[in-house]
Amino acid sequence: MTPLLPEGFRDRLPPHADAAAAIEARVLESARLYGYERADPPLVEYADALGSRLKDGALTDAVRYVDPVSQRTLAIRPDVTAQIARIAATRMGHHPRPVRLSYAGPVLKLRSPELAPAREWRQIGCELIGLDSVPAAQEVVAVAVSALTAAGATGLSIDFTLPDLIATLAAGPLPVAPETIATLQDRLDAKDAGAVAAIAPAYLPLIEAAGPFDTAMARLRAFDTGQVLASRLDGLAAIAAGLGEGVALTLDPTERHGFEYQSWLGFSLFIAGAGREVGRGGTYTVMHEGGAEEAATGFSLYADAILATAGPVDRRRLFLPFGTPADAGAAMRAAGWVTVAALEPGDTPEAQLATHLYADGEARALR
Amino acid sequence: MTPLLPEGFRDRLPPHADAAAAIEARVLESARLYGYERADPPLVEYADALGSRLKDGALTDAVRYVDPVSQRTLAIRPDVTAQIARIAATRMGHHPRPVRLSYAGPVLKLRSPELAPAREWRQIGCELIGLDSVPAAQEVVAVAVSALTAAGATGLSIDFTLPDLIATLAAGPLPVAPETIATLQDRLDAKDAGAVAAIAPAYLPLIEAAGPFDTAMARLRAFDTGQVLASRLDGLAAIAAGLGEGVALTLDPTERHGFEYQSWLGFSLFIAGAGREVGRGGTYTVMHEGGAEEAATGFSLYADAILATAGPVDRRRLFLPFGTPADAGAAMRAAGWVTVAALEPGDTPEAQLATHLYADGEARALR
Repeated sequence: MTPLLPEGFRDRLPPHADAAAAIEARVLESARLYGYERADPPLVEYADALGSRLKDGALTDAVRYVDPVSQRTLAIRPDVTAQIARIAATRMGHHPRPVRLSYAGPVLKLRSPELAPAREWRQIGCELIGLDSVPAAQEVVAVAVSALTAAGATGLSIDFTLPDLIATLAAGPLPVAPETIATLQDRLDAKDAGAVAAIAPAYLPLIEAAGPFDTAMARLRAFDTGQVLASRLDGLAAIAAGLGEGVALTLDPTERHGFEYQSWLGFSLFIAGAGREVGRGGTYTVMHEGGAEEAATGFSLYADAILATAGPVDRRRLFLPFGTPADAGAAMRAAGWVTVAALEPGDTPEAQLATHLYADGEARALR
Repeated sequence: MTPLLPEGFRDRLPPHADAAAAIEARVLESARLYGYERADPPLVEYADALGSRLKDGALTDAVRYVDPVSQRTLAIRPDVTAQIARIAATRMGHHPRPVRLSYAGPVLKLRSPELAPAREWRQIGCELIGLDSVPAAQEVVAVAVSALTAAGATGLSIDFTLPDLIATLAAGPLPVAPETIATLQDRLDAKDAGAVAAIAPAYLPLIEAAGPFDTAMARLRAFDTGQVLASRLDGLAAIAAGLGEGVALTLDPTERHGFEYQSWLGFSLFIAGAGREVGRGGTYTVMHEGGAEEAATGFSLYADAILATAGPVDRRRLFLPFGTPADAGAAMRAAGWVTVAALEPGDTPEAQLATHLYADGEARALR
């Protein structure tokens, strides 16, 4: 039998689609209270323009097609952050900094990695354009925590990383040949001590500097004898200090996968019950026309990953028997009821998954 | 200079994106109160499957690409209704009828007509699968009116049409050669009396039977000497009678454009201030596997068309001077304020479009 949908795509059905929309609304409302206003870029952009908005960002695995109107290649967005960067650099280029924007919408990929087969998902996020300072990161992390809490998540933890750590050390106290840096980063990310020892043994202590935040920080401070990382570590400490007791913190300074365009700071967000990260963020660089660069900080959440941890949905539905006057139904809706009207004499409360029956002017519980 | 976005695509910026999202939320909440639960189908489907779900529906102007995984042609949805029909006929095929579903999301076209240049827009709608009766149409029209009212629209009017009118007459009392029916429908839709007189003069009175509802209905009744249309006209009269005084009604029985897959009933929705229709709906036929047909009724709204009529947005923003304690900001957000925190000493309320300043523990109006 032919599957209904191509691999990596799925329908969200009741009641999960309503629940996902509710989570999204709570996340965006949290961000709105911190001054983040929504931007809604289109699904489609010029492929070359979309790929050049984030420093070190690349347009990978986007669905592309030739526009019959412009004869240029268009891309369906695989990521919204690059679009927000474009908006901030162009249409809102004249706006005083920082600019705070939020967004929510679907993103699409041509292919997916084997371990994460989805080719479409909803990206919800916030971007603070113009700053990548410690106060900027503190705000962005606080908005993320507030959004997840508003969405009903518990057991929050944040795993910090320092995406440009190796590049910084390699350009300074621990020189590494430029052509070797990518391999070293990859092997450190994989915690492959043997390979790291063979390539650049001076970096070996970094493998041990991962884990619970305070321990990892102490090891990093001990490793950083030349104080090259001092400002980064002080920043991380300040961000961590600003978070409440309820958020567990870890540090994996050499984690790089998924943080390809982040600059000094990256973080992954986890919540109880989710099998994978529910979001990620960090600092990055927006490219303006003419090559000017602008600092930015932001995060994205994945509604489906959050939804997977949510409890059962309460569905109260009031059945209106066939012939119930329209104004009676309207009165019950005005009182907050979800009404389900019989449109034929034979319809039943059971068929309509009703929990209550309208009779004699009131709602009676059916179970 | 190269335009930022391809023709037919646009960014929605603050505060309009928030306003559009608010309209959408109100529309969906209205529908939820009538028992319509959300379904969220993917952006992408198998092209052949998507094109075959609605009787007389065709997959026109969809963006298509070859899936590297399945090697089959996929289509980005140009319309959500066909997807809801697929869900109702397959995954929810076992669910008792009628099934009530709502949805909201972007749709995409490869090309656009010259007069309506958008190639992407948000479609919001409700579908009632299993019925196309008068009570079904009454409910669907009532949900549409309620949704538009909740979205803040005023001056509602509904223009009804009878999409299969010509086919019904041509198969009955006023025979027309099958190869001529499409031309006749087209010329009647264009109110081209000369052409209609040349093709099938018996249909000429239909051109005059368009306009204010009661007048048009009287002319149609007079035209329908053989009572072939009696059940349709009685149904229309019942639907009209169920609507309140506040909704203006017109009838254009031969309007066909945009109602290609509708069966006995179609309607367009208008509101004060919108230059074009803000939605449309009607009855249609869902195709099941094996060729079985199922009646359905629904409507779609276009958030942008509604938004165009909305008034200015009230943006109250409370500026928190640099160094304001985190718990002070949290207390103001808990009290309902949108806070905008200075993240640098030099930031100002003016730069952040703030209307209020936090000082001495309270919010002071700036203008």
